[in-house]
Amino acid sequence: MSYEIMTPATLPQYLRSIPAIADFFGDGELEVEEIGDGNLNFVFIVKSADEPQKSLIVKQAVPYLRCAGEDYALSRDRMKFEIRALQSYKIHTPKVYHADEDMSLVVMEHLKSHKILRKGLIEKERYELFAEHISTFLAETLFKTSSLYLQSDEKRALIERFNENRELCKLTEDFVFTFPYMRNETNHIEPGCEEEAERLFADTAFKQKVLRLKYIFMTQTDALIHGDLHTGSIMVNKKETFVIDPEFAFVGPFGFDIGAIVANLGSSYISHRHLSGDRDYMEWVASLIKEIWERFEAKFLNLWRETKKSALIEPGFLPDGELERFRREFMRDLLRQSAGFAGCKMARRVFGIAGVEEIRGIEDPVLRKRAMMDALECGRRLVMEHERIESIDDVVKIVKGAS
Amino acid sequence: MSYEIMTPATLPQYLRSIPAIADFFGDGELEVEEIGDGNLNFVFIVKSADEPQKSLIVKQAVPYLRCAGEDYALSRDRMKFEIRALQSYKIHTPKVYHADEDMSLVVMEHLKSHKILRKGLIEKERYELFAEHISTFLAETLFKTSSLYLQSDEKRALIERFNENRELCKLTEDFVFTFPYMRNETNHIEPGCEEEAERLFADTAFKQKVLRLKYIFMTQTDALIHGDLHTGSIMVNKKETFVIDPEFAFVGPFGFDIGAIVANLGSSYISHRHLSGDRDYMEWVASLIKEIWERFEAKFLNLWRETKKSALIEPGFLPDGELERFRREFMRDLLRQSAGFAGCKMARRVFGIAGVEEIRGIEDPVLRKRAMMDALECGRRLVMEHERIESIDDVVKIVKGAS
Repeated sequence: MSYEIMTPATLPQYLRSIPAIADFFGDGELEVEEIGDGNLNFVFIVKSADEPQKSLIVKQAVPYLRCAGEDYALSRDRMKFEIRALQSYKIHTPKVYHADEDMSLVVMEHLKSHKILRKGLIEKERYELFAEHISTFLAETLFKTSSLYLQSDEKRALIERFNENRELCKLTEDFVFTFPYMRNETNHIEPGCEEEAERLFADTAFKQKVLRLKYIFMTQTDALIHGDLHTGSIMVNKKETFVIDPEFAFVGPFGFDIGAIVANLGSSYISHRHLSGDRDYMEWVASLIKEIWERFEAKFLNLWRETKKSALIEPGFLPDGELERFRREFMRDLLRQSAGFAGCKMARRVFGIAGVEEIRGIEDPVLRKRAMMDALECGRRLVMEHERIESIDDVVKIVKGAS
Repeated sequence: MSYEIMTPATLPQYLRSIPAIADFFGDGELEVEEIGDGNLNFVFIVKSADEPQKSLIVKQAVPYLRCAGEDYALSRDRMKFEIRALQSYKIHTPKVYHADEDMSLVVMEHLKSHKILRKGLIEKERYELFAEHISTFLAETLFKTSSLYLQSDEKRALIERFNENRELCKLTEDFVFTFPYMRNETNHIEPGCEEEAERLFADTAFKQKVLRLKYIFMTQTDALIHGDLHTGSIMVNKKETFVIDPEFAFVGPFGFDIGAIVANLGSSYISHRHLSGDRDYMEWVASLIKEIWERFEAKFLNLWRETKKSALIEPGFLPDGELERFRREFMRDLLRQSAGFAGCKMARRVFGIAGVEEIRGIEDPVLRKRAMMDALECGRRLVMEHERIESIDDVVKIVKGAS
């Protein structure tokens, strides 16, 4: 079907024409409700009128940035890459019932009992299985799309499928690595923070390291990364974890996704320091950072040990013990890179266009400014010190503000 | 025209159908001579019978490895990438009169008074303009196809055009970074060198560093590189320098092309140490390495300084002085990477499938073995020490065998 923007009126007929979805719902009427979270896309819940527990999510991209209006063009190609990434993930992602690249539309499992992780963390919920789940997601998706697992031609085919995701990569280049650290009209500098912003903009030692990390982001093709794996792209309940919204997906550096998780848990920790002051909960959030890295590292290494031949590894090239030493050094460098990216992802939230709710949403302006300055200092230190980090404990110490 | 293997009998008619070539030759008869250098492709000289000074080169790829016969399939796609690279180069490359990706065929300027640089170096010729020319070629082609110059979407389009050059990249992965350092049937181990080969194959510290460099080769998308820039891919006379045969071209690490030049000048130096013993000539060859790097660095930096906006650089992000410090560190890292790749390129020539004439072609077996062992030691040291190199003088010292 050629592209057409769907509405609650036109959607049922379209869905009925798709056998997998007709099967899912059976014969009854369909009810459609638009639930615009609304930055970029249209999102609908579709329910069976007779059996309302039967429901699916329909997400369609429009050729502009929805929150900014039709004048702000943004190619709906982004849905193509979201679809391709969802189809590439095997675990911890909503089941896809139907995907149509021409229509920029995907029909997915409706996650009814799950909450956006960012909200859960603000509400001091604990998800005891989250570290286990997200570390599995990271290890499986990153390892199995890398040259450590794929053959050389499979890797090139993967690059081919995501290479054109240029618009969203450019958003990251601009809004994670550039504009938040210089005078730019897109920034969000609160009254009373002008001096601190100018001090950051003049911090050339920091900005040189950011530029290095930006270069790595643009030129390192480790694996298929989600590209925007903050706590707003994760839905959880006590038993399950789902990664959503991979529209920024492309073949980029391993550490960018890991860094996103670290940065957003760091923001949560800092938010609670100033807002709830709940030491127990803060400790739990900090422990997540360590647990996720350690579980990720163990799983990634296990997958690697099981892989006897890949683009990188020819059987017999190195004895097992020496290969293990190579792997360990590789993981140490990956931790360092992840810490560097985590630093950029935290720092950019302070004066950049897109803040995080747990900090920018603090109502008391004094507390809000304190939290912002802590987040900035944490991000800055992660960037400045990332090349010297030896273990995840060093990262957790920086998040906790210890020296 | 759909693909058809050309012969001296069929080529004139095909060429006459191309206006640019008909113009070049005028009306007279065409004479065709096959000059198979013969590893991979068919190469013809086409001359006007009336005016034999009018001549062009026709190169056509066949869908197999020509030197190994029709059973050894190798996609003729390689010509597609050679054509695209030739068209992307603006300088120091033969003029292209006609290119036909479907026919896997290119018609080029005939370099009549030029010699393959490798032969010239064996014959102790001096090319006083070579360093100036090749440093210009490297600076222009590498800088202007990188994220330091291109915009983000231009860079992605470039990756797209070369991403599918999978077969030739795989040849490099195997024959530069893997097989020459392990027992493998493709290797060429001379009688009397078995012990030295086994010692190399057991050198796990060296092989771990080679594996790192292989990973960089596979995952670092700095710029459009030639991919096989040894002294057999360069034609020279006293006045001119031409880079030919870019069939390995793809978007890869900057240092691989620079490393190829360093490695092959290093081979020439070592060959002369054992064969001609001509100290003056050896000094001249060694001085080329330094001169090429220094001229390359200066030109690359100048191009960078003139570039106010690129995928990496947003105007105003860093003050000029700080950006200059960033550039200098970038160049130091690039020198280190180049030295590492140079080491692989030298070491792989010793026991790998493809030797270099100036060493493997030494007739006296004692001298040949000495030269081989010197090349191996030089390559090994470049790999082992590349991360600590501070200046091009360190590289030259290693080539000269000084400690």
